[in-house]
Amino acid sequence: MRNLLLTIEYDGTNYHGWQKQKNGITIQEVLEWGIEKITRENVNLIGAGRTDAGVHALGQKANFKTASTIPVSKLPLALNSVLPADIRVVGCGEVSAEFHARYHALRKRYRYRIYNNPFPSAVYRNYFCFVPGRLDLEAMREGASYLTGEKDFTSFCSSGSTARTGIRNIFLLDVIKKGRIIDIVIEANGFLYNMARAISGTLLEAGKGKMAPRYIQEILEKRDRRFAGPTLPPQGLFLEEVYYNLNP
Amino acid sequence: MRNLLLTIEYDGTNYHGWQKQKNGITIQEVLEWGIEKITRENVNLIGAGRTDAGVHALGQKANFKTASTIPVSKLPLALNSVLPADIRVVGCGEVSAEFHARYHALRKRYRYRIYNNPFPSAVYRNYFCFVPGRLDLEAMREGASYLTGEKDFTSFCSSGSTARTGIRNIFLLDVIKKGRIIDIVIEANGFLYNMARAISGTLLEAGKGKMAPRYIQEILEKRDRRFAGPTLPPQGLFLEEVYYNLNP
Repeated sequence: MRNLLLTIEYDGTNYHGWQKQKNGITIQEVLEWGIEKITRENVNLIGAGRTDAGVHALGQKANFKTASTIPVSKLPLALNSVLPADIRVVGCGEVSAEFHARYHALRKRYRYRIYNNPFPSAVYRNYFCFVPGRLDLEAMREGASYLTGEKDFTSFCSSGSTARTGIRNIFLLDVIKKGRIIDIVIEANGFLYNMARAISGTLLEAGKGKMAPRYIQEILEKRDRRFAGPTLPPQGLFLEEVYYNLNP
Repeated sequence: MRNLLLTIEYDGTNYHGWQKQKNGITIQEVLEWGIEKITRENVNLIGAGRTDAGVHALGQKANFKTASTIPVSKLPLALNSVLPADIRVVGCGEVSAEFHARYHALRKRYRYRIYNNPFPSAVYRNYFCFVPGRLDLEAMREGASYLTGEKDFTSFCSSGSTARTGIRNIFLLDVIKKGRIIDIVIEANGFLYNMARAISGTLLEAGKGKMAPRYIQEILEKRDRRFAGPTLPPQGLFLEEVYYNLNP
């Protein structure tokens, strides 16, 4: 059996998130069906990040074990020929037998995209959170500065989480403006349930002048979701990259 | 009666193009229905560019006459509250009684977007033409250089055109690369039927090495559509801007 690692891009608009569930078709499921069409095997596809309904991915990673001998260089094209156009396999490589796409992820990068314009975008409506009105970039950046490093992010974790601890390490938290677009880029060793969207919602409160940036320090100390800003809508969020140490 | 000029952004994916027709719902029609909901008037909306099915617009312009007294500053929000999310009015101003959005357009800018990557994009599939394989940017730029200025573009006009002459003036034709994205930007005083997509398809042939860039000079002289490259698919095309002289 080989253990194969896929790189996957998807538009989350039409799916009930990544992870298999009873009440809707998910991206994990559609990919497993696609793999079955190609390999005639019933596989278990393990994703690095369990993205929610409406959340997109440019670089999701997922591994599965297979007895198929199809070369890794051919697998993306073969899978893409059976998958719907809003899910694309854009890379494939062989990894060691014990490799696990979620447990072995060292770092993930998410990007939350805000369309800051008096009117919403027609073309990009499914890929941005629309925010009219002036935003104070410096306040957002000051707020972000309190969140980097190893901290307890319980205040930024929605209920329903199964995590044992709220402690995560944010390596990078950037607020980048380019014309009408403001991107919040977060790299961390792990993300609690809805953490990227709750952090983005809190920085947005600071940007709107509804919250003093330094209050974010207090929010962390409260360890209570009710003190942070809102969870922003899913369509602005992209799982951009997952990092591993693949050279032992 | 006031004559109002709208600026409109739309995602063309779900519509049968701009112009009203028997066999499908069009953007012009949906906007006229929206205006009727707001003003209780049956208006004739005149668009600057008659974009095809699947073609998008970031800055389409269209005018209509109305007895309604709704302020121009309120009209975009009022219209957006009744329009589908893939059509947004992003500006409105009053123009002189004789102003005509198509006849008075001095210049339009179209952008054709190519996603140049080994695998197609899942997220941006409706907004780019997917082209795998290496493209020679310099060959595309050399090809473009033969097309600027006042020329007869009959070879780049699909059949079905009602234009009296094939002569148009291309003021600007740029080929811009940014990562995986190659944009072909065309500004002209007017565009023949499918002209932007035929020019893009011809430059792409040069980029793929299937056509010597200097052959484009010959194509122009042939005045025959069969000699130019293919009409590229609609989803890569954006009507970006329409220019008028509004200060007489």
